[in-house]
Amino acid sequence: MASVSSSIERWWLHKILAAIGYPPIRFALNSGASIAPPGRAPLATLRFHDRAALLRTILETQIGFGEGYAQGRIDVEGDLVAALEAAYQSWPGSHADGWFARLETCCLEHFRANTLRRSRSNVHHHYDLKPDFYERWLDRQMVYTCAYFPTPSASLEDAQIAKMDHVCRKLQLRPGETVVEAGCGWGAFALHMAKHYGARVKAFNLSHEQIVFARQQARQQGLAGQVEFVEDDYRNITGRFDVFASIGMLEHVGTRQYAELGRVIHRTVGRAGRGLLHFIGRNSPAPLSPWITKRIFPGAYAPTLGEAMQVLEPWDFAVWDVENLRVHYAKTLEHWLERFERSASEISSMYDEEFVRTWRLYLAGSLVAFRVGTLQLFQVTFAAAGCELPWTRAHLYPVVQPAEQGPKWTHVMS
Amino acid sequence: MASVSSSIERWWLHKILAAIGYPPIRFALNSGASIAPPGRAPLATLRFHDRAALLRTILETQIGFGEGYAQGRIDVEGDLVAALEAAYQSWPGSHADGWFARLETCCLEHFRANTLRRSRSNVHHHYDLKPDFYERWLDRQMVYTCAYFPTPSASLEDAQIAKMDHVCRKLQLRPGETVVEAGCGWGAFALHMAKHYGARVKAFNLSHEQIVFARQQARQQGLAGQVEFVEDDYRNITGRFDVFASIGMLEHVGTRQYAELGRVIHRTVGRAGRGLLHFIGRNSPAPLSPWITKRIFPGAYAPTLGEAMQVLEPWDFAVWDVENLRVHYAKTLEHWLERFERSASEISSMYDEEFVRTWRLYLAGSLVAFRVGTLQLFQVTFAAAGCELPWTRAHLYPVVQPAEQGPKWTHVMS
Repeated sequence: MASVSSSIERWWLHKILAAIGYPPIRFALNSGASIAPPGRAPLATLRFHDRAALLRTILETQIGFGEGYAQGRIDVEGDLVAALEAAYQSWPGSHADGWFARLETCCLEHFRANTLRRSRSNVHHHYDLKPDFYERWLDRQMVYTCAYFPTPSASLEDAQIAKMDHVCRKLQLRPGETVVEAGCGWGAFALHMAKHYGARVKAFNLSHEQIVFARQQARQQGLAGQVEFVEDDYRNITGRFDVFASIGMLEHVGTRQYAELGRVIHRTVGRAGRGLLHFIGRNSPAPLSPWITKRIFPGAYAPTLGEAMQVLEPWDFAVWDVENLRVHYAKTLEHWLERFERSASEISSMYDEEFVRTWRLYLAGSLVAFRVGTLQLFQVTFAAAGCELPWTRAHLYPVVQPAEQGPKWTHVMS
Repeated sequence: MASVSSSIERWWLHKILAAIGYPPIRFALNSGASIAPPGRAPLATLRFHDRAALLRTILETQIGFGEGYAQGRIDVEGDLVAALEAAYQSWPGSHADGWFARLETCCLEHFRANTLRRSRSNVHHHYDLKPDFYERWLDRQMVYTCAYFPTPSASLEDAQIAKMDHVCRKLQLRPGETVVEAGCGWGAFALHMAKHYGARVKAFNLSHEQIVFARQQARQQGLAGQVEFVEDDYRNITGRFDVFASIGMLEHVGTRQYAELGRVIHRTVGRAGRGLLHFIGRNSPAPLSPWITKRIFPGAYAPTLGEAMQVLEPWDFAVWDVENLRVHYAKTLEHWLERFERSASEISSMYDEEFVRTWRLYLAGSLVAFRVGTLQLFQVTFAAAGCELPWTRAHLYPVVQPAEQGPKWTHVMS
């Protein structure tokens, strides 16, 4: 009997290995059965502590693995990031999850629009965690979006500041100009525009916790007169502004709301304004991992560049610049994951072990998705028909004066 | 009777004025009737020499005006560019041509694909004019696409070289790499990549005249061993290359062939290559002016960025960079038109007056379309899934040493 049972288990393990495309990973069950693809030394061992976790992973690969890992019923022995990277690279495609997950995605996501009420609930799910959780692994200014590393060795703190400056330069922000920000997180970018570029900013966010934090920051930095934080949906933005900026919100909007978002941008910047959309995207249309939309970002969708154009094309906006910062998001996530791991035991005592494992898998999986190119990060700068385009993009790359880097230099005319 | 006839003519003139949205232009018939919008001093007078030209312009605005102007039955008294600019800006929209033109576009363009045979005929129509015509108004290297002006005052010659270098930097072209170019014109870019970047280039073009010229250039410059010019369609490209480049061809491909073009690029660069598409585009989907597709570029269509993504998205190409060079195309066309006018009498003796007037209207109209934003110019750089993205775009903007610009500077450490 033992050998029959062991044969069945090995057959199950082989099914998963085949579904993922034979990555160099050993798959093992606690009972003793194990299997590894031939030829290459396994990078890590994926251990299933019980048969139910294994069967669920066969039925719906991503959700089964995600849930099993979070609950501690599946372990990765070895380097989690290396194991995920191997799996992503051998994976036949992001559409290849089990039929059950595909059906679930189809039923739950495609027929469920992000209405005002659902958007509020989706945002609450993720962003209304207490700031002292995020403080443990984000940079000092609590910027929870892709940073911009002028060089790969830049610190996370510097790279988040560089990102905000990069965006302000793309927008050619000038003192006294008005900006509306849709989805402002804990307010760092709104405050940065006010403090360093003299902009007057109205920033929207559905997350109560984030708005409370941002208002406190504005008061502490003496910017409350220049920056107004509004706890509301982007669809309720009114008034006229020079600039529309949104960093990391489009992923939460959903394609069915793109026409509405375009309408909001159009009525906000009129015929002379400009704007920037910074968002997680794809090379080809595909839903996010069903585990991510179930546990981390309900209602989220990463559009292709073509899909994102549905926001801008109906209103005759001219796309001036698109930059893909995928490699910068992989680097950002390396920093976040490293800081997260340093605080893991503290976070476990604030929440519980399942929470820590869920977030570890989300951060590591995202890191790998950006590293191997499953996900992209697009910054799209656009201008209304009556807004003149800049002559070149050279101003985005200001020459760093040697004095700023180390030894002092002076320029002498010969 | 005279006053009745005059009233009818004034009513006709008013119909055109209304259709174009009341630009500050006087509309006049040779018989004496004239009309101008109230309030503003007219920038120019549009004179119809006969009623048939006027009626045709009422029936199908763009074709009627284009044909009438080319045949000398309509004249613009005053600055042609200023008059066209006023008309473009007051125009209710590019879709707003008469019902007859819309029907014609619908029947002729949408149901006519650019098959291999039709593409050959379309290319022959425009590009097989003798080089000594184009030599009169293009730069020395005969580059018939948008230039890149590092500053607005750069010369056309320098700006075309700067454009070719800008593209090579976007592609990060290295010595010994192989490039396939689809639609190579008179060969300047293929020769530039070989000469200055050490690339080995295979360049395709359907125009016999252009290929003959390009091969001659390759021999004269001693580059015939490094650059092969092939008189064939992009669909017949075979072999594997590091880079796919196409400057000014996508406009001639037609959206129905985008899937096929994507397939060609995919089989050309495989999983590790990269490429660049440089093309005239739109902010919102719309056909080109029906006069342009009738007289200048049969089969042409300028896609939106979203539409152009139909080439790349099915193959998982990562868009790394999009730049809009609209203002550079307006500047390029200013240079071309100025040079064209200087050679107009020569060109008239080579061809005839109708030819000169057709080309003048095409160049002036294109200049205005780019100036006011009816047309855009997109450069899209993309990479296959296995090709690493560059860290930043700073290398596109090399620091110009002050020594190259004027007075000499030396750097002294303090």
